[in-house]
This record gives sequence, structure tokens and C-alpha cells, in this order.
Amino acid sequence: MVNLIGDERLDYLLAEDLKIIQSPTVFSFSLDAVLLAKFAYMPIQKGNIIDLCSGNGIIPLLLSTRTKGKVHGVEIQERLYDMAIRSIAYNKLEHQLEMIHGDLKDMPKELGFGKFDVVTCNPPYFTSQQKHKQNLNEHFAIARHEILCTLEDVIKASSQLVKQGGKIALVHRPGRLVDIVELMRKYGVEPKRIQLVYPKQGKEANTLLVEGIKGGGSDLKVLPPIFVYNHENEYTNEIRTILYGDKGTGAAIK
Amino acid sequence: MVNLIGDERLDYLLAEDLKIIQSPTVFSFSLDAVLLAKFAYMPIQKGNIIDLCSGNGIIPLLLSTRTKGKVHGVEIQERLYDMAIRSIAYNKLEHQLEMIHGDLKDMPKELGFGKFDVVTCNPPYFTSQQKHKQNLNEHFAIARHEILCTLEDVIKASSQLVKQGGKIALVHRPGRLVDIVELMRKYGVEPKRIQLVYPKQGKEANTLLVEGIKGGGSDLKVLPPIFVYNHENEYTNEIRTILYGDKGTGAAIK
Repeated sequence: MVNLIGDERLDYLLAEDLKIIQSPTVFSFSLDAVLLAKFAYMPIQKGNIIDLCSGNGIIPLLLSTRTKGKVHGVEIQERLYDMAIRSIAYNKLEHQLEMIHGDLKDMPKELGFGKFDVVTCNPPYFTSQQKHKQNLNEHFAIARHEILCTLEDVIKASSQLVKQGGKIALVHRPGRLVDIVELMRKYGVEPKRIQLVYPKQGKEANTLLVEGIKGGGSDLKVLPPIFVYNHENEYTNEIRTILYGDKGTGAAIK
Repeated sequence: MVNLIGDERLDYLLAEDLKIIQSPTVFSFSLDAVLLAKFAYMPIQKGNIIDLCSGNGIIPLLLSTRTKGKVHGVEIQERLYDMAIRSIAYNKLEHQLEMIHGDLKDMPKELGFGKFDVVTCNPPYFTSQQKHKQNLNEHFAIARHEILCTLEDVIKASSQLVKQGGKIALVHRPGRLVDIVELMRKYGVEPKRIQLVYPKQGKEANTLLVEGIKGGGSDLKVLPPIFVYNHENEYTNEIRTILYGDKGTGAAIK
């Protein structure tokens, strides 16, 4: 049994045998979160992982299928934190996934410096100045705009949380690539893997996946490109497999 | 008539009605140079363009088909400079293309600061420490390793040569992406366009094209990926068109 509030739905979590609480007016996860959960390095048998800007807990839920390590999720919006808590309980994953209601900037002091093997984050993409694009819905505005945390806040906190040799994986817009790699180096994190996501062949990239290593040496790999749609405007086989696995069913992606 | 020295050949310049002097033991141009000459922004009717690390003049020769502006080429190796001079004369392009035999680090003082609309460069890819990969042939070693100029030398000189709002286009290995964008910002050049070249679908990128604007604002575009070979290990149509146009003939690419 699950307690759904307002317009919340219980959606299949795509390729996995999981369900997740979503709401069209509060928070629905995006393809970007799914791609990040697949892109990030994960220790399989054990490890201490933390996901910042967790929203409804999509990334911790997906990571639970890739690692037996402990996954912490941090979300500042109580309404979203509450959705995540209920989804974790519904999937009986309380032993592995722990949500924290708080500000990511406070996490190093609260949880300790250099305690995590991996940090993941799907942060707000738009600067707070991009008001013309800002959604009037407060839940969306905070999730999408740098209102409560900037890109530098995210990378600084991630660098403080991760141990030497640990990894930080982010998803963002390609327009911020230069800022991201410059900020990573500023905070002692060397970008090591990049993957670009293109809506289709012949189009500019619209999503960027980046992974850095705390204290790593300089040597960047650019992984094969991902195309989301084919020329018939259907998901490519690669994306279908990521989203639906072999089951052919899945939640609506925002 | 053309004066060929030693094992030099006069090769067709691919899709263009030009010929170029090459030598298997001294210098043959690469696909990367051709991709850069196509990638770089060019003013069509007029402009002042400079190509650093010009080698046998491949990039100035190709740019002559895209702009009516003046194109300067700088090459430090006298043997390669001499090949470029003879190729320019053979193609009767002395009115548009001018080779300079010298060190790119001296060019801002010799030619003036902020005098160029566009700077292009296909610099040495390997650091001088990567000795195990270093070719014993001095011509190849200087062209491929950072012996006479480092990446920072290239970006610093380019930034000094280009005018405010002018463009700098480089081709390099993806492994240096972070260094390139960081150095560009250090010298007041904002990376604006990136394009990645993959040997084939499903493989990591092996070539990086980057263009920055002197004094530009932060906003990077990642252009559609380029694939060199198809699954049958033949050039893709995109590469065939770049190399051979509709003629189906062309020089051997190193």
C-alpha cells in the first residue's frame, strides 16, 4: 500500500522492478536523471554513495539496482523529500537508501568531509537570472533554477564530500561544460569522462554527462555519443533499452 | 612546373582544385587539418587570417577556397615552410596566401597585437615528455610533440594575435579538452563551439575541434558528432564529401 497525495501517481520505474511516486505539478523525473544513473561509476559490492538534488529520489532508486552500497539522497524541498521517502518504503529499500532533508551546502559539515566513494547530482540547469524561463510553480522553479544552490555550490560540496580518488558524476546542459570543468579543477576534481547526448543525428547536443575524480591526473575520455530519437522521431534502441529494458513498459518522462 | 625535392609528391588537394607538395618522410597533412579548415569560421569577402603550425601549408591552401581574405601561415621548420611556399606558387595563390618562416611565439611582436580576425592552429598533440611515442625523424617529432611550442604557447600567441570578437579555432585530442578550455579562459578567449570526431559509431572520440571568441560571453554549443568510418570500415558519406567532394579522387591521408 502507498499513500498518494493530490495528483501523485505511482509509476513504473522503467527497466527496473521498482515503482516511484511522481506528480505532474510537483516533480516528475527526467531522462537526464536516468542517463546519469546509468553513466555514473558504481562500486558493485559495497560503497558509500550520495546523490545531491535528489528530487523524488529517482537516482537513489535507480542506483539501488547497480550497487549493494549505501545510497544517501539529499533534497531541500520537504514535499519532494516526502515523496522520495514514501517511494523508498514502497519498494522496501529502507535498508539501502536513506533520504536526508536538508541543504547540500551543509552536508560536508553534517556528514563529514571525504566520506563518500561517489557523488551524483542532477542540479538545477538554469541560473536564477534566467527569469523569463522561470516557472511560477515554486517546486519546479527550485528544481530547475539556481535559486537555492549554484553550480559552484554543487561542485564545492561534492568535492568536500568525496574521498581522494572518489568520483563525482553530474548531468547538465552542454552550455555549462566550460564552467563545470573549470570549477571541478578549482575544487581539486579532474574531469575524466564526458558523454554527450544529442536529440538526434545531425543536431547539437542538449545534455552533458561529466565524471571527475578527486585528485585525479589529467586525461579526459569522450565516450560514444548517445542519440535520443531516430529519424522517425521514435526513441533509439539504445534509449529504449535504458528506459524500458526488455519489458516495453515505463513511466512517462517529463 | 614544380620543383620536387627527394621523395616529395604533388598530391591532389582532395575536394578542391588545388595540389599540394607532400612527403612521406617529411610531412603529409592529416584528416584533422582538413576538418579544422572546414570547422573554423571564415569571413567570406575579406579578413585577415593567420594559421599557426602550418606545416606544408595545408590549412592556408584549403582556407583559400572559403575566403577572399588574406591568409598568413606560420611555420618554424624551414623544410616545411619551403614546401608550403612552392605549393602556394604552384597554385598561383601568392596574392592571397603568405607564408612566414618563424616561431609563433614571436608573431604578436612581429605582426602586431589584435590584428587578426581568425587564428587557426593544428598544433603538436603530444607533450615533450611522451618520449616513448616520439618519432626519431626530427621533422615528425617537431610537428607532433610540444618540443618548440606548448599548448599554452599556442593559445597565448593566438589570443595576442586575434582582435576582440575575433575567433580562434584549434584541433587537438579530446584528452586535452579541459586544458584547452581552461587556457582559453586564462587568455580571455571564451570557448563557443565544440565538435567531436569519432572513428566510428560506438567508439570514443579521438579528435576535438574547438572555437573560441576573444572577449566572448559564456555559452558553449556542441555541434553534431562526426563519424569517420562506417561499420564496413569505409569513410562515411560525410567524410567522403569533405575529402573528395563529388570527384571521388584525392591525396593519401597520413
